[in-house]
Amino acid sequence: MNNSQSVLIAGKWRPSTGIEFFQSANPQTGEALPENYPVSPWPEIEEAIEAAAEAYQHLRQVSPENIAAFLEKLADRVEARREEFVQWANRESALPSEPRLNSVELPRTINQLRLAAAAARERSWCQPVIDAANNVRSCYKPIGPVCVFGPNNFPFAFNSAAGGDFAAAIAAGNPVIAKANTSHPGTTRLFAEEALRAAGETGLPPAMVQLLYRTSHADGARLVSHPLIGATGYTGSRHAGLALKEAADKAGKPIYLELSSINPVVILPGILEERAAALAEEFVGSVLMGTGQFCTNPGLVLLLESEQTNAFVEDIKKRFSGAPAGTLLGSGVEKSLLAGINAIKEAGAEVLAGGNSAGEARCSVQNTLLKVGGDQFLANPIGLQEEAFGNASLIVTARDKGQLTEILDHLEGNLTGCVYSHSSGNDDNLYDEIEPVLRGKVGRLLNDKMPTGVLVSPAMNHGGPYPATGHPGFTAVGIPASLIRFAALHCYDNVRPNRLPTELQNANPTGQTWRSVDGQWTREDVAVH
Amino acid sequence: MNNSQSVLIAGKWRPSTGIEFFQSANPQTGEALPENYPVSPWPEIEEAIEAAAEAYQHLRQVSPENIAAFLEKLADRVEARREEFVQWANRESALPSEPRLNSVELPRTINQLRLAAAAARERSWCQPVIDAANNVRSCYKPIGPVCVFGPNNFPFAFNSAAGGDFAAAIAAGNPVIAKANTSHPGTTRLFAEEALRAAGETGLPPAMVQLLYRTSHADGARLVSHPLIGATGYTGSRHAGLALKEAADKAGKPIYLELSSINPVVILPGILEERAAALAEEFVGSVLMGTGQFCTNPGLVLLLESEQTNAFVEDIKKRFSGAPAGTLLGSGVEKSLLAGINAIKEAGAEVLAGGNSAGEARCSVQNTLLKVGGDQFLANPIGLQEEAFGNASLIVTARDKGQLTEILDHLEGNLTGCVYSHSSGNDDNLYDEIEPVLRGKVGRLLNDKMPTGVLVSPAMNHGGPYPATGHPGFTAVGIPASLIRFAALHCYDNVRPNRLPTELQNANPTGQTWRSVDGQWTREDVAVH
Repeated sequence: MNNSQSVLIAGKWRPSTGIEFFQSANPQTGEALPENYPVSPWPEIEEAIEAAAEAYQHLRQVSPENIAAFLEKLADRVEARREEFVQWANRESALPSEPRLNSVELPRTINQLRLAAAAARERSWCQPVIDAANNVRSCYKPIGPVCVFGPNNFPFAFNSAAGGDFAAAIAAGNPVIAKANTSHPGTTRLFAEEALRAAGETGLPPAMVQLLYRTSHADGARLVSHPLIGATGYTGSRHAGLALKEAADKAGKPIYLELSSINPVVILPGILEERAAALAEEFVGSVLMGTGQFCTNPGLVLLLESEQTNAFVEDIKKRFSGAPAGTLLGSGVEKSLLAGINAIKEAGAEVLAGGNSAGEARCSVQNTLLKVGGDQFLANPIGLQEEAFGNASLIVTARDKGQLTEILDHLEGNLTGCVYSHSSGNDDNLYDEIEPVLRGKVGRLLNDKMPTGVLVSPAMNHGGPYPATGHPGFTAVGIPASLIRFAALHCYDNVRPNRLPTELQNANPTGQTWRSVDGQWTREDVAVH
Repeated sequence: MNNSQSVLIAGKWRPSTGIEFFQSANPQTGEALPENYPVSPWPEIEEAIEAAAEAYQHLRQVSPENIAAFLEKLADRVEARREEFVQWANRESALPSEPRLNSVELPRTINQLRLAAAAARERSWCQPVIDAANNVRSCYKPIGPVCVFGPNNFPFAFNSAAGGDFAAAIAAGNPVIAKANTSHPGTTRLFAEEALRAAGETGLPPAMVQLLYRTSHADGARLVSHPLIGATGYTGSRHAGLALKEAADKAGKPIYLELSSINPVVILPGILEERAAALAEEFVGSVLMGTGQFCTNPGLVLLLESEQTNAFVEDIKKRFSGAPAGTLLGSGVEKSLLAGINAIKEAGAEVLAGGNSAGEARCSVQNTLLKVGGDQFLANPIGLQEEAFGNASLIVTARDKGQLTEILDHLEGNLTGCVYSHSSGNDDNLYDEIEPVLRGKVGRLLNDKMPTGVLVSPAMNHGGPYPATGHPGFTAVGIPASLIRFAALHCYDNVRPNRLPTELQNANPTGQTWRSVDGQWTREDVAVH
């Protein structure tokens, strides 16, 4: 097809052999963007897999220093081209150029790449463990080619060719096959262009990063379960993610999923007495920010029935109605948000504000606030946990403390859970009652703080119990912890010293690598007796 | 049924409500043992699950010190009753009382319990990570009730009520539902008796350890996928393991499998020149030890075609024929070993020694050595990797170095891979060629050492790529690493200091716990500025 964008395979930009194409759209206008992107047929996907497998073998000869240099070079290149990145992402996602894209998300993305580079260079991420007396040594090593499926809501920070999963997979020493999110293929293409250049400049194999725009569902399943694939990182809808999980699980291939999450926020009575208005403002800011399109958007608010609660809900309702409805990432998001709202309504919730399409050419839904009582929630707890991804939230009012705990006990796994309570400890007894229940349902527990905003901290857990993710032991954000997902544990038993990987030799490979030697974490060399 | 053994549910030994029963047999005689063990029906299993979930909640109030005391008390109790344990295990498994059961496996089991206790007490296993400036803190916490399915080949060290998975799950703070291996239910009952007493003596909930002897396949699948279950540890056959995996995966429940492994041993030309006879003795000792019934039994030996290879194979053949055939763990093992040998024969291998049942009342198969050329192996690489669990091994001779590498490239995932080479480095070029290929196929790489014997070392990896296990990032042996399988990552973001788990508070909870504080591993308290 004329005007069809090239795929990046084995270091070459080339026309796809596919015969199906798609266009992305500008969510501000609803109009299709001019570029045509190909749906890659299986032989093309398989070529990418084979090139990635070859690159993975090649990488054994490449020092972590080169991998770090690659990530830094990519960061520099993205920074140098930032205006173009922001323009493309704005055009494809309708996210505001300022401050969101240019001053928040792009710097975060560049920072992630640099932190990943530092982790690759320091090498502590691979957790060398040395039993010197027995000469048994182990550490984590790259798992093999990694497929990254990025989400629609972070065209930079979770982009399959530059975001968190990408940076983690590369820093751990794996080539990446990036499957662009089809809502921002152009932005993804720019990242892949810079990645290819950076690979050339830093001695990495040309197939270090490859780019496909779309595959059929069946071919996606074949991709993640292919014998030459090491692992997959997926962020997106639960439905598509679970289909990939089924295929990967069957083949014994690790797949790390970040699926849906409604991020319960529990507001205890004391805080409403203390600062209801400030809290309402904080909540509304969190839920409507970025038109609510965050994995950690607070989609469920739990309160005890009371006069203060009624007033608080009334306040939120007014703020929802008074705030402009943002533009959504695309017509698919608009459609699924309306479907989610309708499902929640049908499950018994009342609409306090919004509930409908904004009725404009741009993709937009009214800021939507729903409410349901505790009895009704418990009558249909699964239906009322339907994710309404976007600028919508459901308030649940519990009759009493016992019912609040019971509601929490019926929650599915979530990325986050927050508890707001009186600053002087007036709510502490109730906190102690509910915390054990909530704690088991979430990956990250917050106090007095909204869940949006996921700090790139070594202590972060952007993960949680199923169905928020596929395994509660891994985080998608946070360096170096997120790297371990893309690694396999390699043990060396009685292996001769010159044949050990440098991380496991007696000398500390960098002087800076933390290693557990005979049960003690140290940066020293292994003492030779 | 009269004489039916009781199940242990919610702290009580009680008759099963089941109506089906089974007996184990004495492999020395082939005769059924007198005890009848029940097949638990679903309502009984569900009772155990609910009691375990309650115990799990209760455990939040229990200090790691009590958990350590429990594991130590259990170790003491097992030690005090060791004669009875050895008698039961010998009767049920035919493994020799001396040295195997009494002087090797029981001490190992007791040692594992004590190491797990020490890990629970020290708490470094939970890997606290503290970002003090941002007050984001995380560590691993118990995942919930753990089902343990133990294998037939280690009635003590991998017993579902005392072995490695059990100790790891408990030390991480989880209650265990033990599903006895049906070849040694009596031995398992003894462990559960002592565990119940130890729990009572150390303040642990009575449902800390529960025991079921058998379930239907369908109920096993329901068990591992139940919403209240945290995770499962399974060691056993590939077929049964994959059925459980499918159910657990579908429910998003972690399951750690140790399935089949044939443990390739590559013998390079130089070592045959250097010490062929000693190596033959070492190999035969490893493969026939315990009648070959080890997960890490060397079932596949790879050599280059040569005169020395022929002589080496001839030597092994003589040793196989000359050695007495041991008694197998049961008639099921005998049957599956003969089936495995036949499958390998049908796939094209020649029988050099043995190949048939020993034709005795006891469960026994002749020591079996098979051989196939490289071309034939490559013509049917999957068929020739059939596991023949027991005293059997397949020799593969490669035409040249290229073919050797190609054969390695066709291997499935294994727990271990060994390379024997000349001590002066004469084989080093060939080692460097094959190592990258072999390394990717195995969890533990050995030099100049047989794979049987899995040291309980912090650096051990008793794991590997699928289908040896279900995930290449976890080890089933080695403390503290094996504990992490039974834990979920819990992050605390802006949580008030008095509400943090002790592991994440500023003060080091034990003075001994290793924590990563602002990127540095330390045993110090977090400095307060």
